[in-house]
Amino acid sequence: MIGPEIERLIQLLGRLPGLGPRSARRVALHLLKKREVLMQPLSAALADAARAIRTCSTCGNLDTTDPCSICADPRRDSGLLCVVEDIGDLWAMERGKIFPGLYHVLGGTLSALDGIGPDELNVGGLLRRVQAGSVREVIVATNATVDGQTTAHYLAERLAGCAVPVTRLAHGVPVGGELDWLDDGTLATALKARRAL
Amino acid sequence: MIGPEIERLIQLLGRLPGLGPRSARRVALHLLKKREVLMQPLSAALADAARAIRTCSTCGNLDTTDPCSICADPRRDSGLLCVVEDIGDLWAMERGKIFPGLYHVLGGTLSALDGIGPDELNVGGLLRRVQAGSVREVIVATNATVDGQTTAHYLAERLAGCAVPVTRLAHGVPVGGELDWLDDGTLATALKARRAL
Repeated sequence: MIGPEIERLIQLLGRLPGLGPRSARRVALHLLKKREVLMQPLSAALADAARAIRTCSTCGNLDTTDPCSICADPRRDSGLLCVVEDIGDLWAMERGKIFPGLYHVLGGTLSALDGIGPDELNVGGLLRRVQAGSVREVIVATNATVDGQTTAHYLAERLAGCAVPVTRLAHGVPVGGELDWLDDGTLATALKARRAL
Repeated sequence: MIGPEIERLIQLLGRLPGLGPRSARRVALHLLKKREVLMQPLSAALADAARAIRTCSTCGNLDTTDPCSICADPRRDSGLLCVVEDIGDLWAMERGKIFPGLYHVLGGTLSALDGIGPDELNVGGLLRRVQAGSVREVIVATNATVDGQTTAHYLAERLAGCAVPVTRLAHGVPVGGELDWLDDGTLATALKARRAL
């Protein structure tokens, strides 16, 4: 006896990552109670974004323009190219405001298990950008997972012929991290990569 | 360097219950990747529901009609009135398809801590419905929390003058539940309320 409009809303909300049927109902009820202040603005924001956002044909970022505002920014150092797995990783780098260069979004990692090979990733685009000549360094910032590391090694191999240095992010103890809570692998890597104080 | 459309979307998603800034970003990215199959339908479903759904002036349920489809259903037993805290509880009862009567949504519980008294709840409407005469039994189905039980006792007192039996849901071992995992309070209540096999 729940109306079809509410059922449909719950069903769509249940398809969002991290929301099961139970939390979808909870979110739907919250939205229905705040129709004016939250539900209508969210509907409009979704429609606006769905209409306006496109994928940058250069780097794979999502923005209202193509090329995206990062690729089009003349203040950015186009000689530095940071390769990330996903747009979420690009957002993480941008939140830190630590990287002055450009990005390249692969769209995932190589994964034999999931049947994802180089053709499913934006590797061809990366090679073309590096071969175009203005890139001085490629920083591979894939995740420190097995798939991420495999992908990093694969990219290093593919880029070996381009005469451009390929680097990766350092491994070690997270800033603020306690040794007692660290896994053995990180600790061993941090020890091996120790530096002069 | 995330565009304002995406920022706004993340900010609104972060106001949903159970979503923090991190999961809001994750949901936003998922939606942006599925613009046609999920983002636009969800936007439309939100707009439809925000436009069509209203609160039933009789029972407090949310539906496209007022009175709602439950209150308006002639096959329902209008002599049985189930009082629930929230619409989510009404949905829970309806999912079970176990209750043939009508509902009354209080809109919360009495809570001295949160400053919620009888005037903030739909108690006046409940009394008017019971005094109108067709109700044979009021089933108080508030939650088995301290606030829920306080509210139940308050309602029983207020309804004492109406000459209508007021009942509440049984306490006991959940069906399928194991004694070893039950709290002592439930176990003690279940023991006291034991029944002939």
